[in-house]
Amino acid sequence: MAVSEFDLIKDYFNKPGLTPTPEQYVRIPLGIGDDCAVLDLPPEKFLAVSMDTLVADVHFPTQADPNLIAQRALAVNLSDLAAMGAEPLAFTLALSLPKAEESWLQGFSLGLEQMIQTYHCPLIGGDITKGPLSITIQVHGLLDKGKLLTRKDAKPGDLVYVSGALGAAGLAISLMSNGMSLDKPDTKELQAAYYQPLPRITLGQSIVGLASAAIDISDGLMADLGHIAQQSSVGIELNAKAIPIALVVKKFMSTMGDKTKGLNLALTAGDEYELALTVAEDQQEEFLKTTAKLDVPLTLIGRVVKGSRVKCLDNDGHEIEIKTFGYRHF
Amino acid sequence: MAVSEFDLIKDYFNKPGLTPTPEQYVRIPLGIGDDCAVLDLPPEKFLAVSMDTLVADVHFPTQADPNLIAQRALAVNLSDLAAMGAEPLAFTLALSLPKAEESWLQGFSLGLEQMIQTYHCPLIGGDITKGPLSITIQVHGLLDKGKLLTRKDAKPGDLVYVSGALGAAGLAISLMSNGMSLDKPDTKELQAAYYQPLPRITLGQSIVGLASAAIDISDGLMADLGHIAQQSSVGIELNAKAIPIALVVKKFMSTMGDKTKGLNLALTAGDEYELALTVAEDQQEEFLKTTAKLDVPLTLIGRVVKGSRVKCLDNDGHEIEIKTFGYRHF
Repeated sequence: MAVSEFDLIKDYFNKPGLTPTPEQYVRIPLGIGDDCAVLDLPPEKFLAVSMDTLVADVHFPTQADPNLIAQRALAVNLSDLAAMGAEPLAFTLALSLPKAEESWLQGFSLGLEQMIQTYHCPLIGGDITKGPLSITIQVHGLLDKGKLLTRKDAKPGDLVYVSGALGAAGLAISLMSNGMSLDKPDTKELQAAYYQPLPRITLGQSIVGLASAAIDISDGLMADLGHIAQQSSVGIELNAKAIPIALVVKKFMSTMGDKTKGLNLALTAGDEYELALTVAEDQQEEFLKTTAKLDVPLTLIGRVVKGSRVKCLDNDGHEIEIKTFGYRHF
Repeated sequence: MAVSEFDLIKDYFNKPGLTPTPEQYVRIPLGIGDDCAVLDLPPEKFLAVSMDTLVADVHFPTQADPNLIAQRALAVNLSDLAAMGAEPLAFTLALSLPKAEESWLQGFSLGLEQMIQTYHCPLIGGDITKGPLSITIQVHGLLDKGKLLTRKDAKPGDLVYVSGALGAAGLAISLMSNGMSLDKPDTKELQAAYYQPLPRITLGQSIVGLASAAIDISDGLMADLGHIAQQSSVGIELNAKAIPIALVVKKFMSTMGDKTKGLNLALTAGDEYELALTVAEDQQEEFLKTTAKLDVPLTLIGRVVKGSRVKCLDNDGHEIEIKTFGYRHF
């Protein structure tokens, strides 16, 4: 039976668990169902917005679990709020679907709901269209006025930190692109790394005013630090030995007898969604004190220098040649 | 040669004419190029947001002029701001492209620029991905706090108005779906109706506080009035004779010897992007006085009644059977 966009919205999206709670509606005078949604910001706040698209068979396999697709779609967007230190407020969703399949929509809706509940970021509007499977989300977050955590204020001498451990999402992509399913017991951890990255919302909010620059790792650690380097007009030197490589990657690599690939993945794989950030040396103590309260591993991986390039150095200070960067090309 | 997303953004999107002017940057502390864009709202304003997707071969032919595609993509979004009476502030763009083709991107960028200059609504961020051709735009607009022009406050006795004349976009779609190109002298007007609808921004802003409900006609006049009827818990009776049919539609229909199809198109064709609105009788004088200053034709087409259905009545008060509604089904 043919169903309309309005039925889909009613059945899978405009329902408690996804839409704002009564408390959240204070900031959202109008949600789903009119020509626009309406936001009411506190006068002391800026609004941060970010938009990301996930296309089937480019950013996830078409056959992937819709629950996981939804989690990933919202997570990668929330990660951009994290990198600005913003507090999630609400999101909009543009969903293109080849057909209206109940089980898919049920799974997708459930995945969204889990993320919405975890990150207190309700759905306030969007669009559903017939078309190739694709998900565009725009997140909206609140920032204290005047305190912007951007990519452009890193200074030579600043310390470079990264949250978490790297490489697992990259390994997941590499396995998937070789046609491997991640739905098995020994790859479940990789599946989670890819589909359920942890947006570092609390970390981001804690370091506003302490970090000099921050970015979330969507293009790869070196590529994303390259954005900071370019926009701050600085260079960055990383210490290869310090780069935190995910345990699952180390295990996998040692099984494969390939020990160098782990570092390469950690340095270049995109889709990690950890935060890379720079901290002035005289802020380090306060930074460490503040972040110690959070349950987020942070590793000192290098230093901002004069120059314009991002280099990774071995123990002897020699530059290590890196094979691939995380850019996606047309 | 492979190009990166960053090059595309630099070459076609992050440039004067598309990005905010120095005056506009007062409300936009951060535009393209960081993890988020940042908006600074005046304390007396709400933010209205709306998101719409256009998918190739669903909402426009893949081979259509990219300049026109861009104009249409932004126009249909601005039309949602118009229907809320919001003042355009800025927009974000998620563009999926199968390949990076210079002439296409040049045309698309130019089409955006024309709309940005006309409606003072700059580009502040977004995402470019490889994928099937698809454009998602989110517009952001400003509203006076407390004065929401929604779909839910129409009352029995209110008068129903529509802006402009209807049917031309519907006729354009009907011709295109029969494989006809609109790129000929005698169909240029239909092409414009489809690709360059006029978002009724000034009208929308003028009627806040005067109209009881408003909607832009994207699903078809009767379908969209149906949304007002449903959300306001009222019925609506239209006077068939009063429905303004676009001159180009009348001409085309008389050539075809088919006189009833014009009314049907005007009542049911989507993608018109005129405003349909309701006005309480005691506001009519003020409404007419205010809107007389605008260069926008407005026609009284019916009345809000008790009930729940939208009907179109002939001269004798008999209901006219309408063949199709403008819903898009899955």
